[in-house]
Amino acid sequence: MVNIAILGFGTVGSGVAEVIEENRERIAGSAGEEICVKYIVDIRDMPDSPFASRLIRDFSVVESDPEVSVVVETIGGTRAALEFTRRALSAGKSVVTSNKELVAAHGLELLAIAKEKNVNYLFEASVGGGIPIISPITQCLTANEIDEVYGILNGTTNYILTRMIAEGCPFDEVLREAQRLGYAEADPTADVEGYDAARKICILADLCFGKNVDPEAIRVEGISGISLTDVDCAGGLGYKIKLLGRAYRLPDGRVTAYVAPHLISDKYLISRVDGVMNGIVVHGNALGECLFYGAGAGKRPTASAVVADVIDAVKHRQRRRTIGWEPADGNALADARDMATFWYVRCAGSPDVRALNPRRTLERGGERVYLTGSLTARELDAALGPADVRAKFRIL
Amino acid sequence: MVNIAILGFGTVGSGVAEVIEENRERIAGSAGEEICVKYIVDIRDMPDSPFASRLIRDFSVVESDPEVSVVVETIGGTRAALEFTRRALSAGKSVVTSNKELVAAHGLELLAIAKEKNVNYLFEASVGGGIPIISPITQCLTANEIDEVYGILNGTTNYILTRMIAEGCPFDEVLREAQRLGYAEADPTADVEGYDAARKICILADLCFGKNVDPEAIRVEGISGISLTDVDCAGGLGYKIKLLGRAYRLPDGRVTAYVAPHLISDKYLISRVDGVMNGIVVHGNALGECLFYGAGAGKRPTASAVVADVIDAVKHRQRRRTIGWEPADGNALADARDMATFWYVRCAGSPDVRALNPRRTLERGGERVYLTGSLTARELDAALGPADVRAKFRIL
Repeated sequence: MVNIAILGFGTVGSGVAEVIEENRERIAGSAGEEICVKYIVDIRDMPDSPFASRLIRDFSVVESDPEVSVVVETIGGTRAALEFTRRALSAGKSVVTSNKELVAAHGLELLAIAKEKNVNYLFEASVGGGIPIISPITQCLTANEIDEVYGILNGTTNYILTRMIAEGCPFDEVLREAQRLGYAEADPTADVEGYDAARKICILADLCFGKNVDPEAIRVEGISGISLTDVDCAGGLGYKIKLLGRAYRLPDGRVTAYVAPHLISDKYLISRVDGVMNGIVVHGNALGECLFYGAGAGKRPTASAVVADVIDAVKHRQRRRTIGWEPADGNALADARDMATFWYVRCAGSPDVRALNPRRTLERGGERVYLTGSLTARELDAALGPADVRAKFRIL
Repeated sequence: MVNIAILGFGTVGSGVAEVIEENRERIAGSAGEEICVKYIVDIRDMPDSPFASRLIRDFSVVESDPEVSVVVETIGGTRAALEFTRRALSAGKSVVTSNKELVAAHGLELLAIAKEKNVNYLFEASVGGGIPIISPITQCLTANEIDEVYGILNGTTNYILTRMIAEGCPFDEVLREAQRLGYAEADPTADVEGYDAARKICILADLCFGKNVDPEAIRVEGISGISLTDVDCAGGLGYKIKLLGRAYRLPDGRVTAYVAPHLISDKYLISRVDGVMNGIVVHGNALGECLFYGAGAGKRPTASAVVADVIDAVKHRQRRRTIGWEPADGNALADARDMATFWYVRCAGSPDVRALNPRRTLERGGERVYLTGSLTARELDAALGPADVRAKFRIL
């Protein structure tokens, strides 16, 4: 029997405890021994919880108990979560987490402690919720040079965009509805402004390209500036607007990563990833393109990924899983503004049409919509010059 | 450095050699040591191949060379492939394969030999080509009770159906075109009649449900009976016709598996899996639904999966990966004919409409199309009674 502790008994933490109870037999079969939740660490009282008897407040009990070999960190954020993860790893315990903020910001340091202590730091649930994506990248695509990874990485923004597209509801109204349904938080900034997606694309870039990509250092644009006019124009041209996190390797070995709304042709499968679902595309030089689709958040899907990592940590107690990446020097990250791409532009006035090199042009009530040739953001801005720009989005 | 041997230097075998050459550095990084192709066993001469110097004809050289620790079997079929796999495993070498026919028919026996010898028998490439699916099921979904797995598992039939749907070309014509383009073999029976998909759904069922499912024992229906009339009717009702392999667990613990054309609502993502691509859906009790999409065949995608398994075998030389399943007794498999489902039926004459309990009915030039209530195949046949049945397909 293996004893574990769960730090933070919120949505994901309680889901982990429930899934371990419910699928006890299957999990014991997979892990080779029974997995038992010995402690749940939370500062709140929960007298009505079926797990109340295991609830403690003091992490140091876990830290100093040699019986606990795996710690699940579902606290979130980078304060207590960082401290407890450092201490658990240093105490020779493997740590499993769903905390993308922590992995994106401190994964490099925490993986180094794990390596030194010969334990595991695993985070399948940090990207794509229950969708297997970290393991496939680190184990199944190992024969490939991975060129590119991108995806719909945030369910809240995808839900909002899906309803804007399907029903023609404006952003503010759908956001309020999403908050009412629990799909968006009271403070929706991290989702709506793209910061959550930024953490996830950085973790994917770290793993795919082997160099640390700092979420603070990449360009991030959210969905609050998307109007129904653009949803409508895009739809008429055969595109949907989706928020993508995207990262790729340049021929010179540098990596670029960013988050931004994109127009996606409705011929691409990923344009059909709707509602709160996530979809992630990985491109390898042998494999070609592969898409992973499923619930990117939620109590039980996320718990599914966390518990799979717990099982993996139990099976690898004598052998560390070799995942990780290197620190990046100052020149490893290329600015997304310097990367050429096709653009959708809506403007009034007179841009330099020759420089825009448009493949398509639409007139629309005094405005013009251009689908441009391949331009960097700087070239685009120069070409738009004195025009009054109402919207500009990349095209996948 | 690790030495491997490749048995069978056809499309996949030569792809494996190429990918190992091309991504040498990346692969060495993943495996922790360099991987070197020491022998290629084939009965043909290939003087012009860059690998000609490693070509041998006699498998026993590989078998008796203690330097070879991993053998790649890309011979195909169940004759030489079975014999050489048995002998390689018995000689204490791990075996990696893309051979679905062999895994579906003899996986149970070969995994038992691997277990006894404490080596690995790995077959990620046997289902879904380059798409990671076996590893996600056996490693990432281990916290789930898996309820159901289904998918578009054969690229040839999906290519044919996609063109029938998109262009209104009849089956025979598209098949000839597919043969000309190399998407279908000269003898297309295994693909077109569903036998290839049957092998794959049996391997998925083996892994998801833990009991051996014999491809000879399941119901298999191919696509040669699909007419443009049905493609057209289905399209008008909001469905596409796709060939699915499908397996699920019944409440009593039995498993059912089958291959048959299905009508799929165009609201489902899998209905958009077109051309030669494959898509596989797995449903777990914690995860919910997850879809894996990519190239289900082809030289490099398949080689990508084979080489990832080689790397895995190299990393696990001291430790067997615990995948496998149990023999099934006579009652473990439930007949798909006894499972209730919704049906699309096209007929002339007078069925028992009350028993069909249709949700929709269409008149069409003297024929009627029904989308029925939930019925077993036996109930459906009874309800159709004396009517002249022109087509009947399940609805997903």
